[in-house]
Amino acid sequence: MKKQFAVIGLGRFGGNMCRALTNQGMDVLAIDVDEERVNEFSTIAAHAVVADTTDEGVLKSLGIRNFEHVVVAIGDNIHSSILTTLILKELGVSKITVKAQNDYHEKVLKKIGADRIIHPERDMGVRIAHQIVSNSVIDYLELSEEHSIVELSASAAMIGKTLAQLDIRARYGCNVVAIKRGDDIIVSPPAGEPISRGDILIVIGGDKSINRLESQLART
Amino acid sequence: MKKQFAVIGLGRFGGNMCRALTNQGMDVLAIDVDEERVNEFSTIAAHAVVADTTDEGVLKSLGIRNFEHVVVAIGDNIHSSILTTLILKELGVSKITVKAQNDYHEKVLKKIGADRIIHPERDMGVRIAHQIVSNSVIDYLELSEEHSIVELSASAAMIGKTLAQLDIRARYGCNVVAIKRGDDIIVSPPAGEPISRGDILIVIGGDKSINRLESQLART
Ligand SMILES: Nc1ncnc2c1ncn2[C@@H]1O[C@H](COP(=O)(O)OP(=O)(O)OP(=O)(O)O)[C@@H](O)[C@H]1O
Ligand SMILES: Nc1ncnc2c1ncn2[C@@H]1O[C@H](COP(=O)(O)OP(=O)(O)OP(=O)(O)O)[C@@H](O)[C@H]1O
Ligand SMILES: [Ca+2]
Ligand SMILES: [Ca+2]
Ligand SMILES: [Ca+2]
Ligand SMILES: [Ca+2]
Repeated sequence: MKKQFAVIGLGRFGGNMCRALTNQGMDVLAIDVDEERVNEFSTIAAHAVVADTTDEGVLKSLGIRNFEHVVVAIGDNIHSSILTTLILKELGVSKITVKAQNDYHEKVLKKIGADRIIHPERDMGVRIAHQIVSNSVIDYLELSEEHSIVELSASAAMIGKTLAQLDIRARYGCNVVAIKRGDDIIVSPPAGEPISRGDILIVIGGDKSINRLESQLART
Repeated sequence: MKKQFAVIGLGRFGGNMCRALTNQGMDVLAIDVDEERVNEFSTIAAHAVVADTTDEGVLKSLGIRNFEHVVVAIGDNIHSSILTTLILKELGVSKITVKAQNDYHEKVLKKIGADRIIHPERDMGVRIAHQIVSNSVIDYLELSEEHSIVELSASAAMIGKTLAQLDIRARYGCNVVAIKRGDDIIVSPPAGEPISRGDILIVIGGDKSINRLESQLART
């Protein structure tokens, strides 16, 4: 059986979550107090209903406790977000993810027992900062406090050289796990592979090692 | 010399961007029309000024054209965001990144010549959807339309088995590039490495291959 998700609040965060869950084949119930927004999602989500989720009776009648995962994406009205989360918790919903607006909001949600709290604007601010500091970092995945995987544009000095010649592992202490070339991904590229113009190196390692490689790249 | 950045609009997105850029050692000028927000950032950013950036004279007197990268993080007031971007462009700022609220906003910003347009709420909605669909996917980096790197929690069926025994490459067509174990990252783990409880596998491959591995993991 398909997993059942409910998304409460169809703003940019909740609405796009609803869209992406549906695209991944999930059965999504889209809920908003605003009829216009619900209409927009009636052709996107499996189900779409107009409802004020601060009303316990409404949530009960939707059978919300049977959903595997409920996302509360009500933003500006922090009171409604908190009250909705409280009711979901009392009804015994097993997994609740909530969008928080600020630290106060997060604190209350934690105390209530929300399973996961998301700060989209804050987290994207940090993410984009990482990306714009370097001219060569395209995107990254943080593995731990000190390790990451980054996508680095190949610099002019690399073009035509093989990985063996560049010797990134010995010189910087990080590893090229793949090369992105156009639409292709070359996983575990052989040491004899020459770098082409436009290549993107997928590098794993300690942040300091990666930073050294990046600043070297930026200079050449 | 340090790179010089300016961030206009110190909400959650702009404010956290300002913080993260500063933490990475950058020289940041923080700008907002709201004095309270500017005061908050006067001890965080290298420089912080109260200014309405829809006023060309103000931006000129700040010497904004000399900054390497200016971020416009004015959200709700789309008109101010557009007008500010227009002025920055006319003054010849070389790189402009702008937070967009909706598709109309993005369209106008593109026509004006913004170099990069960010939709924090939309992009995080899609990101989180990917993460919650699977119980085992912790985070991911999209490499292309069809390839990703994902962090997968080791399932019960994996514990105690070596990578050679699991034979993920032959069975699913994807590669374990690293194992995250507590604070450690084991890069290119040897075939004889046994999986421990709590391990997180860093897997690279086609989305379909990864999905197959995931659904297998979820079942066991
Ligand atoms: N009590 C409620 N029950 C159901 N939906 C609600 C309730 N209160 C607010 N909403 C809905 O939640 C949605 C998100 O609210 P918010 O104020 O965060 O809008 P937004 O800023 O457009 O969202 P985003 O920040 O994701 O772009 C809105 O569509 C709103 O109608
Ligand atoms: N003309 C302007 N000049 C300078 N700053 C401005 C101007 N107009 C708005 N701002 C500032 O931009 C900041 C972000 O505005 P927004 O309305 O998006 O706030 P927010 O919702 O708190 O931000 P976020 O969505 O990032 O959390 C505010 O601090 C606001 O004072
Ligand atoms: Ca909002
Ligand atoms: Ca890091
Ligand atoms: Ca906002
Ligand atoms: Ca993908």
